Amino acid sequence: MKWGTMEDMLKDNEEIHDLGYKNWKIIQNRKEFCFGIDSVILSDFAKEIKAGSTVLDLGTGTGIIGLLLCGKSKLKNVIGVEIQKHVADMAERSIKLNGLENKFQIINEDINNLGKIIDKQSIDVVVTNPPYKKINTGVTNINEAKLISRHEVKCTLEEIIKISEQLLKYDGAFYMVHRPDRLTDILFYLRKYKLEPKLIKFVYPKPDKPPKLVLIKCIKNANQFLKIEKPLIIYKESGEYTEEILKIYNK
Amino acid sequence: MKWGTMEDMLKDNEEIHDLGYKNWKIIQNRKEFCFGIDSVILSDFAKEIKAGSTVLDLGTGTGIIGLLLCGKSKLKNVIGVEIQKHVADMAERSIKLNGLENKFQIINEDINNLGKIIDKQSIDVVVTNPPYKKINTGVTNINEAKLISRHEVKCTLEEIIKISEQLLKYDGAFYMVHRPDRLTDILFYLRKYKLEPKLIKFVYPKPDKPPKLVLIKCIKNANQFLKIEKPLIIYKESGEYTEEILKIYNK
Repeated sequence: MKWGTMEDMLKDNEEIHDLGYKNWKIIQNRKEFCFGIDSVILSDFAKEIKAGSTVLDLGTGTGIIGLLLCGKSKLKNVIGVEIQKHVADMAERSIKLNGLENKFQIINEDINNLGKIIDKQSIDVVVTNPPYKKINTGVTNINEAKLISRHEVKCTLEEIIKISEQLLKYDGAFYMVHRPDRLTDILFYLRKYKLEPKLIKFVYPKPDKPPKLVLIKCIKNANQFLKIEKPLIIYKESGEYTEEILKIYNK
Repeated sequence: MKWGTMEDMLKDNEEIHDLGYKNWKIIQNRKEFCFGIDSVILSDFAKEIKAGSTVLDLGTGTGIIGLLLCGKSKLKNVIGVEIQKHVADMAERSIKLNGLENKFQIINEDINNLGKIIDKQSIDVVVTNPPYKKINTGVTNINEAKLISRHEVKCTLEEIIKISEQLLKYDGAFYMVHRPDRLTDILFYLRKYKLEPKLIKFVYPKPDKPPKLVLIKCIKNANQFLKIEKPLIIYKESGEYTEEILKIYNK
């Protein structure tokens, strides 16, 4: 890597965030979006993937999930797919910043075109933190980058599940974080496309509140038996992170 | 009611259990099955049904859910359907024991035949605590009555959902308690038959254990928006019931 200082890599409104892990960094854009706890929790949930796996991260955004998996798991390589050119560019610069060019590759493409670019049944693991909201629901008067990352403007949940099924190997794994209010859609389409849910974990902000996130692991073509794990609680009554969350953040 | 003593109503291995509610009683068979916390929780979950509703209890067993709903809600009447003749007979005797003959009627029939007996789109509310397990899973060397109540020997989850959709009014409500490990099956078939899940509540034995039960409320033909509520916890760390459970049991 040939840069004068790390800051030379930055464009307007961008900043470098320390991942608190192996001295790795990530570039984020203050005005658009920064990664959230959902991506961190998903990469922890997915870290036990088989050694030597080829991982596909659908809607990679800043590349946070791929970066964390490069550190936490024994994967062979990650392919991150991002439709927004300037976001894909930001992820590529983060990869260079950490010297992970041989492990983590970005494709700036619509996920609906991946069938022409990636061989069918060639992927071991799909990870995805997709847009949570349907079009025309929730707050939509936000900038375009945020809108695309949060709402199903460019791809729907069904499209993500459909392309994942096409690209995964026979018994490939699919990991997703999503909103509990989409659970019917999620389980309906996973069953429809034979990505059988095997493990679900709900993430509760506090023990006496409704869950805010749901983590799902599927195995393609697996038998129909689902396990729901004990809840993951984010905050103690005191407002501090729980031990489990601190461990996920390597604190 | 013309009985010498309440005990004259009992057959072999039967006993009278006090519901702890309006001095109502229920007849149970010690050797076959007794109602569990799942039925009590479901009847509490379903108690806010509209006043004047006609309620259908599919697989009514001893009639526990119908009895509790007669007490807790403002329903007009309950039709309890039970395929096992001697179990249906036991439920009928419990209804007489409480003087509820004008409110609660038992039909001894296979639920798959209900389309010929009950008018389509005539029911306001379906409640069901169906067999949780698929055929040939789990412990099956139990007596026939237990087997039928626990395993999908006589009807499948899909059949229960399908007949419910046929008999419910346009915006009728469907309440079910089931096992979380069947969640994909449940949500897949509910969506398929347009009983749209609106509310889900997981029941955890303790806050740091996997959920044991799931409560689901659906509205036929409703829009696709699901709310998952805060967890219902059964036991405190000390092993005592939580306040919420004591309240459900009217303690």
